[in-house]
Amino acid sequence: MEGIMDNRLLQQMEFIKEVDKLKKIGRQTYLSDSSRKENDAEHSWHLALMAMLLSEHADEKADILKVISMVLIHDIVEIDAGDTYAYDTEGNQTKRKREEQAADRIFNLLPKDQAVYMRELWEEFEQGSTAEAKFAHALDRIQPIMLNDASDGRAWKEHRVYLSQIIERNQAIEKGAGSLWEHALEQYIKPNVEKGNIKQ
Amino acid sequence: MEGIMDNRLLQQMEFIKEVDKLKKIGRQTYLSDSSRKENDAEHSWHLALMAMLLSEHADEKADILKVISMVLIHDIVEIDAGDTYAYDTEGNQTKRKREEQAADRIFNLLPKDQAVYMRELWEEFEQGSTAEAKFAHALDRIQPIMLNDASDGRAWKEHRVYLSQIIERNQAIEKGAGSLWEHALEQYIKPNVEKGNIKQ
Repeated sequence: MEGIMDNRLLQQMEFIKEVDKLKKIGRQTYLSDSSRKENDAEHSWHLALMAMLLSEHADEKADILKVISMVLIHDIVEIDAGDTYAYDTEGNQTKRKREEQAADRIFNLLPKDQAVYMRELWEEFEQGSTAEAKFAHALDRIQPIMLNDASDGRAWKEHRVYLSQIIERNQAIEKGAGSLWEHALEQYIKPNVEKGNIKQ
Repeated sequence: MEGIMDNRLLQQMEFIKEVDKLKKIGRQTYLSDSSRKENDAEHSWHLALMAMLLSEHADEKADILKVISMVLIHDIVEIDAGDTYAYDTEGNQTKRKREEQAADRIFNLLPKDQAVYMRELWEEFEQGSTAEAKFAHALDRIQPIMLNDASDGRAWKEHRVYLSQIIERNQAIEKGAGSLWEHALEQYIKPNVEKGNIKQ
């Protein structure tokens, strides 16, 4: 038993060391002060905190521990697969395959039971159909919009993003949390259309 | 009611934007690849994931959602108070007062009920006496040791840290999770004493 436990802990700590690499995976979103882009680990922390504070706004009652767990791990596959920018059509065609291979490698560093749980949790997020996954997606989408607004629309301007693209991509917010979508539209999106940061 | 709800969400999102600054608060610990030091947001993400995976190693049964919530917010006060290095004697004398003032300002951006909850959660972490706080402290201490080992003891070497300091400071690991302390000692600390990265 001692030996089995030791081995479990060795595997767990090996995984925990491996995912340190998430801190090196860059995203397209700028920090609120616009000084640099954020990375996946920072983004995941931000989402977990949002899940903790905003659960009252989920349209369907969601298990908050599950939502937090989901957002903590949802980008881990990008350690191997890289971050694919929302409006990169080509990259998004090969994304699923690259991310599956990454999930196979990385989650399997864990003891079997935890590897299976993490893989299922990631798949549930990817499918996006449970209450938890829908709310997690809503958070994942509103967080960069909030930061884009705070950094005076810099990422939108650099990528010459159209309002129609933002509306289409971010239906996930409305599907998971209607009041968050209302907030995003009124507080972040419309003012940036007016300023010309988002193209019409 | 509509107005009250809107106001709650405005306050919550204001807090969520404010704490983006945690991504700019540097720590003394290097990433596993030694390329740069980590920041508080990355560190908090790492701890939350560890809480999720390592709860079986807590000596006392702990509410995992509470542990995760605690580690997600435990460093937020450093947005105003800054990170105080573990072995900085002078800085540690004024730390408590600086952090209390920060907690007053930052948590009070939230709606009253959540401000009170967050403040209590932070105080519970600081006191370190509940099962959840003890386990959270154990994680907070083993994570940099793991990274220091992965980065070939760089932070220990730069700060000329003695084994006795590490043993004294990290009693929190043994108090919260005996098996994690055993792991830290055998896998990370002893090998770095042998390599001369930690002074005897």
